[in-house]
Amino acid sequence: MSHGKQFTLYTHKAGPNGWKVAYFLTELGLTYESIYLDFNKEEHKAPAYTGKYNPNGRIPTLIDHTNNDFILWESNAILTYLADKYDTEHKFSAITADDQYRQLQWLLFQASGQGPYFGQAAWFIFYHPEKVPSALERYHNEIKRVFKVLDGELAKREWLVGDKYSIADLSFISWNVLGTGPLAPPDYDIAKEVPHFWAWFQKMQARPAIAKVHAEKEAVNKQ
Amino acid sequence: MSHGKQFTLYTHKAGPNGWKVAYFLTELGLTYESIYLDFNKEEHKAPAYTGKYNPNGRIPTLIDHTNNDFILWESNAILTYLADKYDTEHKFSAITADDQYRQLQWLLFQASGQGPYFGQAAWFIFYHPEKVPSALERYHNEIKRVFKVLDGELAKREWLVGDKYSIADLSFISWNVLGTGPLAPPDYDIAKEVPHFWAWFQKMQARPAIAKVHAEKEAVNKQ
Repeated sequence: MSHGKQFTLYTHKAGPNGWKVAYFLTELGLTYESIYLDFNKEEHKAPAYTGKYNPNGRIPTLIDHTNNDFILWESNAILTYLADKYDTEHKFSAITADDQYRQLQWLLFQASGQGPYFGQAAWFIFYHPEKVPSALERYHNEIKRVFKVLDGELAKREWLVGDKYSIADLSFISWNVLGTGPLAPPDYDIAKEVPHFWAWFQKMQARPAIAKVHAEKEAVNKQ
Repeated sequence: MSHGKQFTLYTHKAGPNGWKVAYFLTELGLTYESIYLDFNKEEHKAPAYTGKYNPNGRIPTLIDHTNNDFILWESNAILTYLADKYDTEHKFSAITADDQYRQLQWLLFQASGQGPYFGQAAWFIFYHPEKVPSALERYHNEIKRVFKVLDGELAKREWLVGDKYSIADLSFISWNVLGTGPLAPPDYDIAKEVPHFWAWFQKMQARPAIAKVHAEKEAVNKQ
């Protein structure tokens, strides 16, 4: 690497899972160089990427140049790695062993319950070769369901784990942006239906690091 | 708990994610009592379950009676918890720090890339209110894609992480059973198309602990 920064992040200008990693690197004040893969050119499926960095042919992939160019993919594995290694004061991560497993539990819920289902809504809205209202309805309902699960928990406490903002919370931001925006279920008043979810999401959106990354995202997508 | 076993496992007779936990508890030789929730009676959505054990209204949930009745859900969080706590000799889990993150990476790929996509195939085959061939084709293609990613890795080494069978491998078994069985893509010769995947899967199926759980599953589903 010639860019002199600690990390290289293989990512995509719009893909939510890459921005998720950018949020956390920014929260931690770590330096990274983003390489935006062009999905239209199938750069994420090219052997130069899949053979060396990520056999799954997806983004993100992180390379840690201070750890022998250690390569890791899957965004929530990356968040956990970064927390363990670079958040040793636990400013953004669970402290006790039990809370660390609860944190992992929420990361797995985000990865399995939010990302893929919100992603299917995106697929059936923007990419599927035909319109399938019954499929779209299914995934809009899943978006509502996931918001409701989070809302129920956030009615009981301010943050998901350990009484503080952590990677468990942060992991949901980028798909929340889509689920409350371009993928939002029709005729669904989010602030009214899931007020605890909404307050939690707004609180995270207002964090300086998150706002900074959103500004970067906007700038990159204007290019 | 009055059953005298170390764990209570809230699960389902057919649900792959519950059997995944049973595999690992059995590999570890730990004792557990399974409580099979009846999805037809919506027991997984009942407040008695969601309020106390699992706000997501899914299975599995594990309760560890030797750790102050610690409650954990999300099957791959449970595998990690069990490995850290009860596989301290690393018989079934990664040893080095870097390998532990690679293990987590594969667990997240299983949870986000295999489970939900194979699950959508199941949905469109068995439950969707109308037949949508283009949707089913999408998810059959995803099953092939996931098998291919695994096959590519297993062409290079025998196991996913650390040169040994670990929870990274085990986590794929229960959805492999479905993806090569009732959800298998049509006209797809699995052993020929993805031979390294197939050999790996057969090796795991032949393990005594896995075969034992499959026999239990068969017995439970005959009741």
